Amino acid sequence: MSDNKFPMVDLLSKPEHTLKTIYVACRTCYSALYPINIWEEATDDEKMLNLVKKVLKSGHHSTVEHCQFVFSVSGVSRACTHQLVRHRHMSFSQKSQRYVTEKGDFEYTTPKTIEKSNLNEDYKDMMKKIAEFYGKMIENGIPAEDARAVLPNATTSSLIVSLNLRELMHLAQLRLCTNAQLEIRTLVRKMCDLVIKEEPWLKDYLVPKCEIKGYCDEIRGCGRKPQKQ
Amino acid sequence: MSDNKFPMVDLLSKPEHTLKTIYVACRTCYSALYPINIWEEATDDEKMLNLVKKVLKSGHHSTVEHCQFVFSVSGVSRACTHQLVRHRHMSFSQKSQRYVTEKGDFEYTTPKTIEKSNLNEDYKDMMKKIAEFYGKMIENGIPAEDARAVLPNATTSSLIVSLNLRELMHLAQLRLCTNAQLEIRTLVRKMCDLVIKEEPWLKDYLVPKCEIKGYCDEIRGCGRKPQKQ
Amino acid sequence: MSDNKFPMVDLLSKPEHTLKTIYVACRTCYSALYPINIWEEATDDEKMLNLVKKVLKSGHHSTVEHCQFVFSVSGVSRACTHQLVRHRHMSFSQKSQRYVTEKGDFEYTTPKTIEKSNLNEDYKDMMKKIAEFYGKMIENGIPAEDARAVLPNATTSSLIVSLNLRELMHLAQLRLCTNAQLEIRTLVRKMCDLVIKEEPWLKDYLVPKCEIKGYCDEIRGCGRKPQKQ
Amino acid sequence: MSDNKFPMVDLLSKPEHTLKTIYVACRTCYSALYPINIWEEATDDEKMLNLVKKVLKSGHHSTVEHCQFVFSVSGVSRACTHQLVRHRHMSFSQKSQRYVTEKGDFEYTTPKTIEKSNLNEDYKDMMKKIAEFYGKMIENGIPAEDARAVLPNATTSSLIVSLNLRELMHLAQLRLCTNAQLEIRTLVRKMCDLVIKEEPWLKDYLVPKCEIKGYCDEIRGCGRKPQKQ
Repeated sequence: MSDNKFPMVDLLSKPEHTLKTIYVACRTCYSALYPINIWEEATDDEKMLNLVKKVLKSGHHSTVEHCQFVFSVSGVSRACTHQLVRHRHMSFSQKSQRYVTEKGDFEYTTPKTIEKSNLNEDYKDMMKKIAEFYGKMIENGIPAEDARAVLPNATTSSLIVSLNLRELMHLAQLRLCTNAQLEIRTLVRKMCDLVIKEEPWLKDYLVPKCEIKGYCDEIRGCGRKPQKQ
Repeated sequence: MSDNKFPMVDLLSKPEHTLKTIYVACRTCYSALYPINIWEEATDDEKMLNLVKKVLKSGHHSTVEHCQFVFSVSGVSRACTHQLVRHRHMSFSQKSQRYVTEKGDFEYTTPKTIEKSNLNEDYKDMMKKIAEFYGKMIENGIPAEDARAVLPNATTSSLIVSLNLRELMHLAQLRLCTNAQLEIRTLVRKMCDLVIKEEPWLKDYLVPKCEIKGYCDEIRGCGRKPQKQ
Repeated sequence: MSDNKFPMVDLLSKPEHTLKTIYVACRTCYSALYPINIWEEATDDEKMLNLVKKVLKSGHHSTVEHCQFVFSVSGVSRACTHQLVRHRHMSFSQKSQRYVTEKGDFEYTTPKTIEKSNLNEDYKDMMKKIAEFYGKMIENGIPAEDARAVLPNATTSSLIVSLNLRELMHLAQLRLCTNAQLEIRTLVRKMCDLVIKEEPWLKDYLVPKCEIKGYCDEIRGCGRKPQKQ
Repeated sequence: MSDNKFPMVDLLSKPEHTLKTIYVACRTCYSALYPINIWEEATDDEKMLNLVKKVLKSGHHSTVEHCQFVFSVSGVSRACTHQLVRHRHMSFSQKSQRYVTEKGDFEYTTPKTIEKSNLNEDYKDMMKKIAEFYGKMIENGIPAEDARAVLPNATTSSLIVSLNLRELMHLAQLRLCTNAQLEIRTLVRKMCDLVIKEEPWLKDYLVPKCEIKGYCDEIRGCGRKPQKQ
């Protein structure tokens, strides 16, 4: 099982009119017009983009909360999903290890450092032994919710993930940082790329935090931006 | 200005596939399949509805968070928006009284009890006097953000409001209750009706809390359901 | 009624051990020790402060969420509370205009620009007229929840407000900015000063956003820090 | 390692005046008095308790958000913490498997069904083998953040957990339910017991959801309360 295709990410749902929704939200704050009238007359993409960029630059990010994106994620380790579900402004529906019993050899991820090492075969063997013992426990009547005690962090999971654009920007800032673990960085990179494919202008906003701040505030930086004094 | 048309509500955006999204979220929790495969094979509306109803009945409401609705609201009093923005799982972009100066006679709501009373003309006069004094302050260089000190709770506002289906259900439970103030009850009723028009099966879920609980937990009930012992 | 004493703020409750709690939260993330053992051995304030400052500098602010502060606020305008309750990570219990009827001349704030202008007496007269009409409506049987339609933004309110230290830092960053309206800036200044009196080391963290970022991202800045390029 | 002492829970911090804080929050909503004056005159515990119970019965739970509790938790499996951190109104600082390397035999939990089965020795052997392979990977230069791929769900973790009383009531309702997994049920039972020891009147509010609703809404109930029709 190659890490290259893992994690697998699909964009299931996006707003009908991302830019227009944000534009109308911005205008509503500063206009005497009814928002429905602003909505009906909003047709000029360039004009809309100019206003939205100006508002975002000034840090008023609540206007992008009105756009929600829904993703299907699979082939992602439980180590990674434990990190992902810490984001409290997101919504998750995740495959349950209590109610879904793994059959035969369970699916798992292999970190690149292990894959390239001379321990890769031992790693596969270990996973096979774990799968065997998990299967033996199930056969002996141990409930799946308890037998899973032996399943490793590398066991893959599946989720439906949804979040609004403000949270996606925040997620990108934290998890595209070089200090984030490779798997979640890859996952968030794929999520952002799917959104940017739909809305290319978002390319400048779905970036690691150093690109927004102009400096790195991590204790040890990667050199992409200078450290904060 | 008649209360009948106030507040004005339009549905600007809804999920592309509401039922299917919820169904796939439900299935993902209990299935060994990848969610993208469940998504691609989900075509039978009746089967989807049956599962979703069963999951909702058992109280697992996180699965409906993946569906977001965006509304345009106007002609709603600031008294009402002060109540509305207390809902912390919703997103708002509201017309600013700091940056938008009211021109001439500002728009305002008239509660039905006042409209039907013999004080209705006095109410109109009072509003006119307030508008005049507000205008006088603006003319004399008082900034709009300070002159607004005199504007009444009845002054109307406009907002873009977005929320997911879980929060809409919660909003309905609290604000369709007979004990909620008439204006916000009317507003939420209109929001729910617009959604039910798109997704008729949601009619049973966008109801006051007593319909869900089977009893009334308010100190003084309206008689729709028996009081909780 | 002078603005000088308004808004009135008291600190009702604070953590028993603010610094120690944050220190133990930080250590827990990076230590093999049980947190209860770290807690029991944490006595050196200087050592604790050094670690906490290092962690905060690197942007890991979740560790300060474990400290909650509770404030009593009164003499604050409803215009200001409408801004305040937009902060969705805070908890509020606010005096209800539906259930509490104003008696005689209601309490109100006077923005400084009005107080210093030659319209100050007219403003007082206007407030008196509004109070009279409000009283007349109440006498005529209009419910308080509807009669309040005429009450102005300047009407004062009371609230219990609670928030954790992470949100207080965020609140300070937004609302101590010179572009925030004077009343909420004064309110948040008083809240921060009460906390700093208890925990002087927090002085460097309860500051406007420009002090953290090193630049101003507002469209029009006050000159305290250079504009972002 | 016996499950009996696991998970280990300590209450690190609680409000100075739990009942009084809630009482003042309740009174503030319905009183013309300043909250600081209500606070200073609140001395009669029985009177306070009566009002608080009445308000809670009517479902107005926002008033208990002003009380925060901080816990130290250890000896809890990563399977359990993955469930716990799904609660988005709580704050967590958790031991990192990226930055903390396990030494020798890592600490793990043993589900009671395994402990009592004839596979208990095999389970211990499996854990030993995993520990050996983890150690071998560390020795061979695999970073801890990747070597942890092999660590099982049973591996224990430590956290600082904080939440307000409203969320603790919600947590109790969901996780004291017989359908919750035994480990998180035990953890939440211990958290609630520590709070009830300080505030005995909370005994009636820190209960599974069926006790509040009067019926069971789970698909398969335990018989404690009748199923919802």
